[in-house]
Amino acid sequence: MSYLSSISSPTLLISEKICRANIKRMADKAERHGLNLAPHWKTAQSRIIGEWAKDYGITEISASSIKMAEYLSGQGWKNIHIAFPFNIREIPRLNKIAATQSISLQVINPVTAQRLVDELTVPVGFFIEIDAGYGRTGVSVSDFGLIEEILLIAKKSPKLNFKGFYLHAGHSYYMPDIPELYEQTRNALDMLKNKYRTEYPELLTRTGDTPGCAVMEDFGDIDEMGPGNFVFYDLMQEKLGGCFKSDIAVALAVPIVDINRERNEILVHGGGVHLAKDVLKEEDGSSNFGEVVYLNENGWEIPEIQNRSYLKSISQEHGIIKASDSLMKTAKIGELLGILPVHSCMTADAMGSYLSLDGKIIDHCEGSFDKK
Amino acid sequence: MSYLSSISSPTLLISEKICRANIKRMADKAERHGLNLAPHWKTAQSRIIGEWAKDYGITEISASSIKMAEYLSGQGWKNIHIAFPFNIREIPRLNKIAATQSISLQVINPVTAQRLVDELTVPVGFFIEIDAGYGRTGVSVSDFGLIEEILLIAKKSPKLNFKGFYLHAGHSYYMPDIPELYEQTRNALDMLKNKYRTEYPELLTRTGDTPGCAVMEDFGDIDEMGPGNFVFYDLMQEKLGGCFKSDIAVALAVPIVDINRERNEILVHGGGVHLAKDVLKEEDGSSNFGEVVYLNENGWEIPEIQNRSYLKSISQEHGIIKASDSLMKTAKIGELLGILPVHSCMTADAMGSYLSLDGKIIDHCEGSFDKK
Repeated sequence: MSYLSSISSPTLLISEKICRANIKRMADKAERHGLNLAPHWKTAQSRIIGEWAKDYGITEISASSIKMAEYLSGQGWKNIHIAFPFNIREIPRLNKIAATQSISLQVINPVTAQRLVDELTVPVGFFIEIDAGYGRTGVSVSDFGLIEEILLIAKKSPKLNFKGFYLHAGHSYYMPDIPELYEQTRNALDMLKNKYRTEYPELLTRTGDTPGCAVMEDFGDIDEMGPGNFVFYDLMQEKLGGCFKSDIAVALAVPIVDINRERNEILVHGGGVHLAKDVLKEEDGSSNFGEVVYLNENGWEIPEIQNRSYLKSISQEHGIIKASDSLMKTAKIGELLGILPVHSCMTADAMGSYLSLDGKIIDHCEGSFDKK
Repeated sequence: MSYLSSISSPTLLISEKICRANIKRMADKAERHGLNLAPHWKTAQSRIIGEWAKDYGITEISASSIKMAEYLSGQGWKNIHIAFPFNIREIPRLNKIAATQSISLQVINPVTAQRLVDELTVPVGFFIEIDAGYGRTGVSVSDFGLIEEILLIAKKSPKLNFKGFYLHAGHSYYMPDIPELYEQTRNALDMLKNKYRTEYPELLTRTGDTPGCAVMEDFGDIDEMGPGNFVFYDLMQEKLGGCFKSDIAVALAVPIVDINRERNEILVHGGGVHLAKDVLKEEDGSSNFGEVVYLNENGWEIPEIQNRSYLKSISQEHGIIKASDSLMKTAKIGELLGILPVHSCMTADAMGSYLSLDGKIIDHCEGSFDKK
């Protein structure tokens, strides 16, 4: 019996084959450039997919919350990095997991450093997150006063150990010129390393974004990379040139509930609570919330470009597909279609589990299999 | 000890007082107009909040998926209506819950009607969903051929019982002139009732959208209303004029993790996985993903308009608040702020539970308390 026959409601499918190929490609690249790959597990959020990653020599991962770090701890990871400016309300939870699992944090202000010094009961590492222009989070790259204030506080405790500098060049999602951006990233991290390595000879520099890690071939003296999305990829990454559609490792299976032959539209059970609401713009200005693939016994087939169909609108549970002529000819009420997500991290988080193509449930930090 | 001291991570707060007042107001309005109120529980998705609703004479509710209907069944509801075009892959699950819980469905095509006739093992009711211009789902209001084809199929089985016509005037979210829209809704439903009530003397007409149900005072001959969002309301509804900000019954508590005094920005742990990504546009064209309220022992306080602060951007877990001068003066790293959501249904679904202001966990169909 095919995995498809078990599906009655919206279900997130994962191709282990594509996912492993994505991990292997990035692991090979990291090795080629002498970088330590510590992927950001905010995308997969899964213990089982963590086991797949270990097959390619990956020994460290990142989480984006203490909750996720708790979920991933005790699974044999050499270190789990919480890649989010640390929230001091969570020090008690941190002390608990860091007692048995090597943890590192991000610190971007003296208040947080001081509270950690005061309240840590077990050792943790920390990176100072650097903002080299993205403007979301981090210490400005030239604010040596702030960097040194944090380092000085940390020195007061043997439990808060400086590991290095972390830079998430998230503007690679918005900027067309990734090589230019990387020049900036490399220069920022190299400058900081040169400035502080006399005092901290072991200090590491890490960069993170998937578009950059996927596209770049020159990482300069950077020591580590921590991309996340590459594990699954998605339509956003494809648009940015970091992957092909055939590299996308997850697809939402959605049941067809109605077909409108006048409008060439197909109504599916699959909306914002399943896919999340990230959206791309089509050339004609219309919205694209995900693209149709044809499901089969072995996974899915991507239509030729002239037969492309996509979700033109979604609400909480409804999705409306703008269907190609070829899809209109074959679609039947009660059958399933696949939807490649615009932003796979958000879709996986909304769904809270995966179904493998051999019918196995793959865990996700957020929930039970029958979530939706 | 305050409910606030128990919070370390993003947590969705619910004010029972505001929520009950919202339910009572709509129940009073329904009674005043002689309408049966069968609210859409896609917003609250909660058994406990269902108990609150029963205090105001509410005996029937709606769900947007079979999963949600399963979760709400067995709780003493006279009927649960699945307000989504029925998905025939779920007939086995339907037969199971409808064996012990009165269920009604929406049917919009003959294929679905026929499969129900063939495979139902227990009786269910059904509404035909009508599209009077919204264009999302439903049988076109003038397509009597299709309506009668569905009715004819249903007559073949004593298990598939026609209850009436359902019309979701969802364009009230986009159209400024709600009274004109309701004229259309009333006319459509009245016409259908007049046409079919000789044959179906018990047939009911139901309309659903919150903006219309909140704003209108003339429902004509409509029998039932099924709004959902009014239970919590949100910034989108406030913008549409259906509520005041003080009617919004939920707020996301988020910890402050950094403060940028140069940019007047506050970084919080609270992003797309908590709030979802619905967004409003400010007058200056900037984005608004939620507005700041000040949390206190009794709930929250809404700042004066000149001291308004809002989330100007979010990513998966990060939120950046564009802060007013007064908020910049008082905000401290490690403290909590509240965020009124743009779209409360999506936020509640993303969070999967609520915390009441007296520290009790309020259930939600989607998950466990410590979801994020």
